[in-house]
Amino acid sequence: MANSEFEYVRKFEDWDALAPSNWIVVRIDGRGFSKFSKRQNFSKPNDRRAIDLMNAAAVEVVKQFTDIVVAYGQSDEYSFVLHEDCQLFERRAAKLATSISTAFSVEYCMQWDKYFPGQILERPFPTFDGRCVLYPKKKILRDYLSWRQADCHVNNLYNTTFWNMVKGNPVTDTPAMTPTEAELALKGTFSKDKHEILFQKFKLNYDKEDEIWKKGSVVYRKFEDKQSVKEPTSENQPPQSRNERGTEQGKKKPLSRTQMEKERKRKQKARVVVEHIDIIKDNFWQENPWILE
Amino acid sequence: MANSEFEYVRKFEDWDALAPSNWIVVRIDGRGFSKFSKRQNFSKPNDRRAIDLMNAAAVEVVKQFTDIVVAYGQSDEYSFVLHEDCQLFERRAAKLATSISTAFSVEYCMQWDKYFPGQILERPFPTFDGRCVLYPKKKILRDYLSWRQADCHVNNLYNTTFWNMVKGNPVTDTPAMTPTEAELALKGTFSKDKHEILFQKFKLNYDKEDEIWKKGSVVYRKFEDKQSVKEPTSENQPPQSRNERGTEQGKKKPLSRTQMEKERKRKQKARVVVEHIDIIKDNFWQENPWILE
Amino acid sequence: MANSEFEYVRKFEDWDALAPSNWIVVRIDGRGFSKFSKRQNFSKPNDRRAIDLMNAAAVEVVKQFTDIVVAYGQSDEYSFVLHEDCQLFERRAAKLATSISTAFSVEYCMQWDKYFPGQILERPFPTFDGRCVLYPKKKILRDYLSWRQADCHVNNLYNTTFWNMVKGNPVTDTPAMTPTEAELALKGTFSKDKHEILFQKFKLNYDKEDEIWKKGSVVYRKFEDKQSVKEPTSENQPPQSRNERGTEQGKKKPLSRTQMEKERKRKQKARVVVEHIDIIKDNFWQENPWILE
Amino acid sequence: MANSEFEYVRKFEDWDALAPSNWIVVRIDGRGFSKFSKRQNFSKPNDRRAIDLMNAAAVEVVKQFTDIVVAYGQSDEYSFVLHEDCQLFERRAAKLATSISTAFSVEYCMQWDKYFPGQILERPFPTFDGRCVLYPKKKILRDYLSWRQADCHVNNLYNTTFWNMVKGNPVTDTPAMTPTEAELALKGTFSKDKHEILFQKFKLNYDKEDEIWKKGSVVYRKFEDKQSVKEPTSENQPPQSRNERGTEQGKKKPLSRTQMEKERKRKQKARVVVEHIDIIKDNFWQENPWILE
Repeated sequence: MANSEFEYVRKFEDWDALAPSNWIVVRIDGRGFSKFSKRQNFSKPNDRRAIDLMNAAAVEVVKQFTDIVVAYGQSDEYSFVLHEDCQLFERRAAKLATSISTAFSVEYCMQWDKYFPGQILERPFPTFDGRCVLYPKKKILRDYLSWRQADCHVNNLYNTTFWNMVKGNPVTDTPAMTPTEAELALKGTFSKDKHEILFQKFKLNYDKEDEIWKKGSVVYRKFEDKQSVKEPTSENQPPQSRNERGTEQGKKKPLSRTQMEKERKRKQKARVVVEHIDIIKDNFWQENPWILE
Repeated sequence: MANSEFEYVRKFEDWDALAPSNWIVVRIDGRGFSKFSKRQNFSKPNDRRAIDLMNAAAVEVVKQFTDIVVAYGQSDEYSFVLHEDCQLFERRAAKLATSISTAFSVEYCMQWDKYFPGQILERPFPTFDGRCVLYPKKKILRDYLSWRQADCHVNNLYNTTFWNMVKGNPVTDTPAMTPTEAELALKGTFSKDKHEILFQKFKLNYDKEDEIWKKGSVVYRKFEDKQSVKEPTSENQPPQSRNERGTEQGKKKPLSRTQMEKERKRKQKARVVVEHIDIIKDNFWQENPWILE
Repeated sequence: MANSEFEYVRKFEDWDALAPSNWIVVRIDGRGFSKFSKRQNFSKPNDRRAIDLMNAAAVEVVKQFTDIVVAYGQSDEYSFVLHEDCQLFERRAAKLATSISTAFSVEYCMQWDKYFPGQILERPFPTFDGRCVLYPKKKILRDYLSWRQADCHVNNLYNTTFWNMVKGNPVTDTPAMTPTEAELALKGTFSKDKHEILFQKFKLNYDKEDEIWKKGSVVYRKFEDKQSVKEPTSENQPPQSRNERGTEQGKKKPLSRTQMEKERKRKQKARVVVEHIDIIKDNFWQENPWILE
Repeated sequence: MANSEFEYVRKFEDWDALAPSNWIVVRIDGRGFSKFSKRQNFSKPNDRRAIDLMNAAAVEVVKQFTDIVVAYGQSDEYSFVLHEDCQLFERRAAKLATSISTAFSVEYCMQWDKYFPGQILERPFPTFDGRCVLYPKKKILRDYLSWRQADCHVNNLYNTTFWNMVKGNPVTDTPAMTPTEAELALKGTFSKDKHEILFQKFKLNYDKEDEIWKKGSVVYRKFEDKQSVKEPTSENQPPQSRNERGTEQGKKKPLSRTQMEKERKRKQKARVVVEHIDIIKDNFWQENPWILE
C-alpha cells in the first residue's frame, strides 16, 4: 500500500500567500454570540465580565504572536494587526486566520471559569471565526481601526439608550418599553437625541460613561523606558525602527536571524497592556510611533 | 463621530466563496505538536489517550456541523469533508476553515481533562490550524482520503519500528539505539524489511497491531435502519438521496426549506460513529452509499 | 546600475494557475460591438459577413491552439473549451485568457478585408476581451455550452421579430415601428407569440430560418476516418483516448513527450470544421466522443 | 428551449476585481518573439523599425485608455501603469489584461505595413500576452519601473557586446565568433569589462549609443503649458490633482461625473509623447508630478 499513487491530490491545494507590503488585519467575531450571550445571561447593554474575558484572551494572543503590533476589540469582535512586512507562516492566509482564531477561541474557553465562576460552559462552546483583510497603506489601516472604534461608539450609544428604555426609570416616571417599542422610538434619532433621552429620562450623562464602553479596548506592547526610543540601550526599549526602503530593497541590511530572535525576545518581555483610549486622533500613534513603524 | 467617513475600508474585504460543485475538505493540523506531545509525555509510537481525545473532538465537530459528511483522522490531523453542494456560510473559505478549526481546538482543550486526568494543560494551549481544499470529482476526493490513510499506514509502520529500535529488546538481545542510529538503520528499508525487523527482533507481528494505528479513524453518521435506504420511512433513515442533476439544474426540485430543516434534524439524531476501517477499497463506500451521494 | 536592488518587486506577481481537473472555458466578447456594428453598417438582425469573419477567426485560433477541444460562437462572442487535463502555460489564467483573446482579435482585424472588402477598418480597432471560467464536471461544461446555444436561439428569435417589426411589411400592411414601439410590443411575449407574429405579419416561418442564426457555430476537429475510432491506425484518427484515472493517478502511464508531440501533429493535420448544429442534445457528443474524452 | 435551466452555470464565474488602492501594472510580452524576430529578419542587437512599431502601438493604447498614466517599453515588452484609484472595468483583472493586450496586439499587426513595408506578416501573427500586477505603494511602483529600465540597460549592454563579437571586426583583427563562443567569452564579465571590449575591439563608446537602446521608451501625456500646473485654466493643463485622502474617504469631494468626463476629454486632447529618458532617478517624476499624483 504505497501512497505515491494518490499523491497527485496535493496539487489541488493552492498557495494562498497574501500580497507583500500590505498590513494584515485578522478580525475575529463570536459565532452565534447573540444567542450565546442570552444563554449565559450577559448583562445589558454591557457585561464587564464578558469584556474582561475578551481582553484577557486578546492579551494572551498578542503575547503568543509577537508579529501582532496592535489589537483592537469591542463587543464580541477583535482585530489583530500584523505588520506589513510580517513573514509569519509565509503570509499564508488560512494559516494566519486559523492560528489566531483558534488561539483566541481556546483562551476564551479556558479562562471562562475565571471570569464567570460557577457558571458552566456548555455545548456548543463559544468560538470565533476569523478572516484576513489587507490594507495597502498605513493611513488606510488607521482608517480601518477608526472605523471599528467609531462603530463601537455608535453602537454603545444606541445600546445604552435602548436598554435603559427597555428597563424604564421609576424616578422619572419613564415606563419600561418592549424591545420593539424602544426600537421604534429610536428610529431616525440622531446622536444628540439619544444623549438627550439618556439625560432627561434616565439622569445619565453619556459622556461620563466608562471609557471601556465608549472606546473599546486597545491591546499593545508597552515599552516602559521612554528614553529608549531615542537611545535604544535598555532592555525594555521599543523594537528597532524598520526603514521601509531598507527591508524592501535590501539597501539597508534586513535584520539578521540573531537580531530577529533578539527582537522577538525583547517583545516577549515587554508588558502587554489594555487601554480604553482614542485611536482615531493622532495622539496615540504619535506617542507610540514604533507600533506602525 | 460618524463612522461613515471610514466605511470605505469595507471594500478591502474580498469575497472568498469557494467554487461551486467541488467537494470541500477542511484539513486541520496540530500546531507545534511534536513539541507539545513531548511536553505532555505522549507515549511512543502511539498514545491511546491522545488519539481518543482527537476522535472525541472530531465527533463533536461532526455533530455540530451537519454539512460534514465524513471525517478522517490520524496522528494530529483530521480531514472534514463537506458535500460538493454544501452551502454553509455561502461556501466562504475563511469562515469554513476558521469555524471548523476553532470548534475542534476548543473541544480538544475542553475535553483534555477527561483523557489526561490530573495532567494540567499549560500555555501555549494546543490549537489546530486549518485550510480548505477543493476536489472537483468524487473520485479525486476518494483519492485524497486514500492518500491520508496510506500515509497513516506508512508512518505507523515506520514509527512502530523506529520506537521499538530506540527502546531495544532484552529478550532478543537487541540493544537500545539512539534516535539517530535508528533513523540511519531504517534509511532505504522497504515495507517488508520493517515487518521483518519487527518480527525477528521484537517478536511483533505488525499485521496484528491494533487497527486504530494502522487505519486511523473514520467518523460518520450511522443510519441504523438499513432497510431505510430503500424505503425511507423510519426516523433513523439515511438522508434523502440528492440527484446531482437535480440540485444543479433545478430539473428535479431542490429541497425546500422545511425539508432541509427536517433533514438537518434527522442528521442530528443519527448516531455519529468512529471506526478504524479501510476507506481505500470500495467496500466502505458501497456499504454507506449516502455519504458521498 | 544593477537591477538587483529592484528585483524584490517580482514577488508582487502572484501565481494564477487554475485548479487542476477542471474544464477551462475562455470566453471572448467584442468590446463595444453595438457601437462598432453600427459604425460598420452590419445588417440587422444578422450580418452574414460578420459571422463568417467571427468563424474564420475562430478556426485559426482552434488550429493554433491544439489544446482547444471545441469552440462555440454566436453574435460577437466565442467560447473556447480547453480539456480538463490541459497543461498549456501551466494553466495560468492570465496567460490563457490573453493568448486566446489576442490571437482572436488579431485574426479578426487581419481578415477583415476579406469579409468586408473596401470597407476600411478605423480606430478604435475591434478587439475582444476574455476571461477563464472553470467547470469541474463534464456535465456542467455541457450545460454551459447548452446555455450559450439556448441563449443564441432566444436572442435570435427576439431579434428577428424585433427587426422585422422595425422594418415593417407593406405586403401585409404592417407599418414600420420605431425601436421603442417594437420593444414595447414584444414585452411579455412568449416564444410562440413571436413565431406567430413572424408568420402572420411577415410571412416568415422561423423554423426555416438558416441554422447558422438559430444554432450558432460549433468549431472542432473532424477526424475523417470514422473507423479509426475503434482501430486507430490511419493518420487521420481521433486523438488517443485519455483514461482519466490514468493521467491523474499515474496508474496508467501518462503520454510520453514523443506521444504528445505526435498527437499534437495529428491534431494539426485534422480538418477544423464549422457546423451549425444542436449541441444541447446528446447526438453531437455521441458522434464525436473523443471531444470531451 | 428555455435557457433558464442552464443559467446556474453563471455562478462558476468568479469576480476578479483587483484590491483597491493599489497601482495596477498591465505588462505585455511578445509571444514567441525570438522565433518571430528571426523569421522577420530583425537586425541585431536592435532593430529600429521593430521598436518604433512597439512604441507606435503603445502610443495608441495610451490614447485609447485614458486611465493609463504612464507606460514603459523595451525589447518586446511594455508595462502600462493604471492609477491606484482607477475604476476602469470595476478593476476586473481579466478584463483589464485582455483589453490592453488585445488593443496592443491589434495595433502592432495593423501598423506593421507602415514600419515593415513590403514585408508580409504571416501566421502565426504576432500577439502579446499580458497580466496584471498590483503595487501597493507609489515607491514600489517606481521600483518596478526602475527594475524594467535597469533590465533594459543590462540586456542592451550584453546584447551589443555579444552581437559585435558574433559579427567580428576586421579593422581590429577581431575574428567573428560563433554565438556559443561569444556567450562563453562573456560569462562572468562585469559591466566595465563589456565597455572595455566594445571600446578596444569594436571602437565603440557604449555611452554614446542611442538613448533609445540604453533607456528604453517612456510614453506619457505631455501637458504643454507648464504654468497650468499652478493655475489650471488653459486647455492643455495637467489633470486635476487628486488628493488621495479625498477620493478614498469622501472628505474631499470625489470628482463628479461631469468633471470626470471633462478630465477624460482633456486627457484625450493632451499630446502623448515617447521619450528615452531616465526614470530611475527622481528628475523625471519631479518634472511631471501629476503622473503619479
